[in-house]
Order: sequence, then C-alpha cells, then structure tokens
Amino acid sequence: MTTQGYDLAIVSWTDQMRYLTGYAENGHKRLLVLLVPVTGDPVFVVPSLNEQAARANRADIERVIPWQDSDGWSTAILDLAHEMRLPERAKVLVDDELHSVHLIAFMNVLPGIQVFPADEAISILRRIKTAAELEWMQRAADDIDAVADEVMGALVPGITEKAVQQMVVDELAARGAEPGFTPLVCFGANGAMPHHDSNNTALQVGDVVVLDIGSTFNGYHSDITRTFAFGAPACPEAVAVYDSVLRANHAARALAAPGVSCEAVDDAARRVITHDGFGDFFIHRTGHGIGLSGHEPPYIVKGNSLALAPGMCFSVEPGIYLPSRFGVRIEVIVTVTENGVKSLNVEPSPELVILR
Amino acid sequence: MTTQGYDLAIVSWTDQMRYLTGYAENGHKRLLVLLVPVTGDPVFVVPSLNEQAARANRADIERVIPWQDSDGWSTAILDLAHEMRLPERAKVLVDDELHSVHLIAFMNVLPGIQVFPADEAISILRRIKTAAELEWMQRAADDIDAVADEVMGALVPGITEKAVQQMVVDELAARGAEPGFTPLVCFGANGAMPHHDSNNTALQVGDVVVLDIGSTFNGYHSDITRTFAFGAPACPEAVAVYDSVLRANHAARALAAPGVSCEAVDDAARRVITHDGFGDFFIHRTGHGIGLSGHEPPYIVKGNSLALAPGMCFSVEPGIYLPSRFGVRIEVIVTVTENGVKSLNVEPSPELVILR
Repeated sequence: MTTQGYDLAIVSWTDQMRYLTGYAENGHKRLLVLLVPVTGDPVFVVPSLNEQAARANRADIERVIPWQDSDGWSTAILDLAHEMRLPERAKVLVDDELHSVHLIAFMNVLPGIQVFPADEAISILRRIKTAAELEWMQRAADDIDAVADEVMGALVPGITEKAVQQMVVDELAARGAEPGFTPLVCFGANGAMPHHDSNNTALQVGDVVVLDIGSTFNGYHSDITRTFAFGAPACPEAVAVYDSVLRANHAARALAAPGVSCEAVDDAARRVITHDGFGDFFIHRTGHGIGLSGHEPPYIVKGNSLALAPGMCFSVEPGIYLPSRFGVRIEVIVTVTENGVKSLNVEPSPELVILR
Repeated sequence: MTTQGYDLAIVSWTDQMRYLTGYAENGHKRLLVLLVPVTGDPVFVVPSLNEQAARANRADIERVIPWQDSDGWSTAILDLAHEMRLPERAKVLVDDELHSVHLIAFMNVLPGIQVFPADEAISILRRIKTAAELEWMQRAADDIDAVADEVMGALVPGITEKAVQQMVVDELAARGAEPGFTPLVCFGANGAMPHHDSNNTALQVGDVVVLDIGSTFNGYHSDITRTFAFGAPACPEAVAVYDSVLRANHAARALAAPGVSCEAVDDAARRVITHDGFGDFFIHRTGHGIGLSGHEPPYIVKGNSLALAPGMCFSVEPGIYLPSRFGVRIEVIVTVTENGVKSLNVEPSPELVILR
C-alpha cells in the first residue's frame, strides 16, 4: 500500500478477510468489513451481532467496532476516517466482492475518495502458496480424484444429473471433505453449456458426460473436470474433440514455467484448438488461479501479462462446446515448480474413456 | 424510473434478476448483468459461457450480448450506452449486491454517472406479494414448522450442533424441500451469538437451544426460530427471558397493520424488552422482509418510516442475548392483512418448552 500510494483498504467478508485474519462471516446484507489503513492498526467494523465472533479472529486484531441496526454504521466510519487522518482524495482499495450498496454508501459518507479494486493488490500476497498451503491443496486434489473414480464407476442408465451431484457430495462427506462448489454434472447436449445448471436429465447410453467437481481441505480448493462417454458416443466426433482438448491441455502445461506469462499459457492451449478447427467453440479462458478461493488470480487469459512464479497454482481447463450436441473439457490443477509445472491431479486418460 | 429520474438500472445475478426475468446464474467473478434503460428494451450482458442459458430467460428478453474472457466487456457497455443515449451525468440504479469490482469498472468506463442503490426502487415491485407468492410462502412455512417438530423430538444428549444441522437438511429433503440458509443450531452459551457458526458442540442437559431454520418452496422462503430448554435450564432466568421475548413478539404483531410504520413495529417489541430490563441485550432489528430472498425490504428497524400495506411479509424475531450464558429468540413470518397481520407459522409455545 505504501509503495503504491494507497491510504486505506476495505476488506469485506470474503476469502480476502479469511486469508488476512482467519475470520470471515456472512454479513448477509449488513456491512461487515476490516479496514486496513496504510499506517496504524486494522479495525473491524461489524454488526453488533457478529462482535463476539470477530473478536475471536486469529490475527490478534484487537479493535472491533460493533454497530447497531438502529444506528447504522456511517458515524463509525466518519470517526475512523478522522482518526486515521484519511485525506479527502484518499486512494482506497476496495474488496472486489464488497456489495455495491456498501461501496455507494462509503462514497456518500466519504465523498472525494478514489476507489480501486483490491484483489490485484491482495493477490500479490496470496498467489504464491506456502508448503503448507500446497499440502492442503494436494489433499483436496487426492480427495476429488478419488471421488471422480467412484462416481464414474457407479453410473447406470437413467440416473439423473441431480442424483450424480448428490453422489459427489456423499462421497466427499464419506472422506470428511466438502464440495468446493455445486458439482457440475452435464449429460449429452447439456455439456455444451460450460455452466449448465444440473437438473433431472437422465443418463442415456451414448451420452458424452462432463463432470466438473471440486473439494476443499482446510479451506483450500481443488477443481477438476473429466469428460467421458457412457457407451459408444452418439456423436462419434467426440473422440477427435477429446483428443484436441487433451493436446491443448498438454500444450499449456508444457509451456508453463517461471517467467512465462499467463496469456502465453492461454495462447498455447488456444492454438492447438484453433489449428484443429474448433477455435470458435473454445469460449472461455484456459484457467484460473486457485487456493483459499475456488477462483482467484492469476487468471490464464489473453491480456494477462503476469509472469508465472514458483508456488503459483492454477487450473488448466481448455474446452470445446458444440451447441446442442456435446461438450468436452479437461481440467487439472497445477503448481509452478522451479522449471515447469506439476499437476496435483492424476493424469487425464490419453483417449476418450468409454464406460460400459 | 421515469418518475424518479433514473436513466438506467444495472441488475446483477441476484434475486432481483430472478424476480424480473426468471433467470439468474452465478457469474462467479465475471460480469453477468441485465441492463434496463428507462426507455427501450432491457439487454443481458453475460459471459459467453452463459449465453445459451440467458437466452432461455422466462421474460422473453430477446437481446443477449455475450462477452469473451479474451476481450472483456467494456466495449459492449460503451456501445450500449451510446445506443441508449445515456447522458454523461446519468442517474444509474445499481443492484445492491453487484460486486464492487464491477461497479468500479462501470464508473471507469462511464465516468460521470451517478450511482444509487437499486433495492429500494425494485423492492416497490417485490414487497407486495401476490396470492401465488403467498401460497408458496405458506408451503415453505408448513414445511419448516414440521421439520422443527421432528428435530425437537429427535434430540438426545451428546448430539452435536452439526449433526442437528444435517438432520434439518435431511428432514427437508424428505419433504422435497431445501434449506433457505445454513441451519443455525446453538446450544447453551452459543445461543448468545445470534449468528453463531454451528460446530461440534455437544448437547448437554440444561442447555437452552436456539434453532433458527428456513425452507424454500418454488424459490420462496420461510424462516423461523424456536428457543427451548433441553431439560430444566441450567440458567433458570431463561424462563423469564423467554417470557419477555414472547411478549415482545406479540406486541409487535398486535401493533402491525396497514398504515403502521416499520419502525413503530420495531419499537413495540423493543419497549417490552427494555421495560423488562433487557434492552441492552436486544442487539438487532425486530425483523426483515422475506419472499424470493431470505432477507429483503421492508426491514423492521428504527429509522424505517415505510408504512405497512396488505401483502407485505416479514419476520418478527425479537431476541435477548446474555453473553456467555444463553440466548432466546422467537421468530415467525407474518403477512399484512386488511386489518392486521397473520402468522404463516404455528404459534410459539406460551412458555419455555422443557424437553425430556
């Protein structure tokens, strides 16, 4: 903050707060923030009903200012700004996920402040994982790989996407783990929507299945996608599409290493798919950072010139989506090593798996 | 928007979008919005991977502008602003829960716009429930009341808060229903924290238990809190505290009627508790509106002069929290009728229930 000239950071009840303090609770629609001034001690400003829990934070932040529903929080913020000697044109970092209603209120209480997204600044701290963080992510990766095997072995014709979702949750629970996000289960044409909302679609022989599932261990995430066919694929082109996506996945990982830019990694995957004639159907970035959040910087996307460094972790997940037919995505989590990247997951099958 | 001089509303993937269009999908960290100009047709601007789903919206909104990770969305917004002839100092309503990172980006792309929270404007549409909405809320209320009975009947010494949480989820699932929020189960001193994060605390004879649980039916919420003792309460004062909270709950409901202000209803509950000497321990508002969102306007809180009207629905949930000892909260959902309010839930016990 000092080197970049910021006066204050407003951290909301997100993974940013959890990373910095070990504490974060849903404020529902109430303001629940950590204020970090460039000099002096950080302060929690929380609804009075969260006061006790905030005081138990693991970062030994002693100052907690509770506010009551009947009074609101603007006086507390004004007093703090005065005490922190915040300049009128203060440069303020704002948690990316702070709700707009609260940002607008801040801008009304402190007119003149200049606001900037905080994630990029905070991500400098978060994006290089420690050995302990990597160990937790490996545990999460092992759990989710095992669950994927179990689920693939248990599929039967007629089972619904929702039932498979529940199976993922149950298998994780049996390992004492929790899903990192709502499991994404896509049968047949549903796989052509990368963020399909799983429903009661029943599995049919010939379906190409996209299974995008995640797990957490000690708050740290894993996230994988497996694509396979349930019986010989009704669309035989799925075999070639799988091969293209797999080569794109390998190309991205082969290039990634310290000093290589995020966008170059994206480009390496995209070139393969474009060369194969499917460029128009690879409609998202190649990957996202992962750690305490399921999605966090660095993003593996065109325009991101950030150079990779050892300890960074991200997904490699190229995909091809043929509308109304099927989709293929192959995703693993990698961590950057001294001279390349290492996958935390088992290797994807070298060819489209055909179950049964 | 016309009468209040607004030029544009930015609606994010929240219950606001779901209410207006029947569609809303988590954009994760990507911009996924509905733009509603004061004249002309609304437009979705969504990540390309959500395009298909957005096109299937139930409001027949035909225009969907997808954006790609590689290009970002600022050009699309600039083009739309030009096409909509948005004035430089446009008054823009912003979804309360739009992420700040996106609001900041909007303010950078369209410098000069004036931003205002949208919830209040949109809530004018949402806060009066139709007969169909009330029917769905009654179904949700019936479900959660039944689940509370089941759970209270199944408690045994040593069961953990987390196990009771799971029991609530399972009982709801058995009815084909889903929890409206993570069930809040608080044993003994944990009940003194209104938003306690349920953990492995084991139930002991003598504990005062706070059970705050909710259900949804067709997207519409119910939300109740029951407080009872498991065996004769270790803190005998719980009996008197329960009685105070119950009278506060009744006082609020007795006053509430069309034309009465939200803050007067809050005050009616607060007076009882203050009179009984527990005013300092009633640390939150008396209630919140409820419907498609678990928490929505109108808020039953000091400072809210909004007059109640038939069809509004809100929680009545006074509470008293004695730090490190126990808490008592009694919550039901009511709907405003022609001449008062009607509870959607079964009546709270007239005195502290002592199980076993």
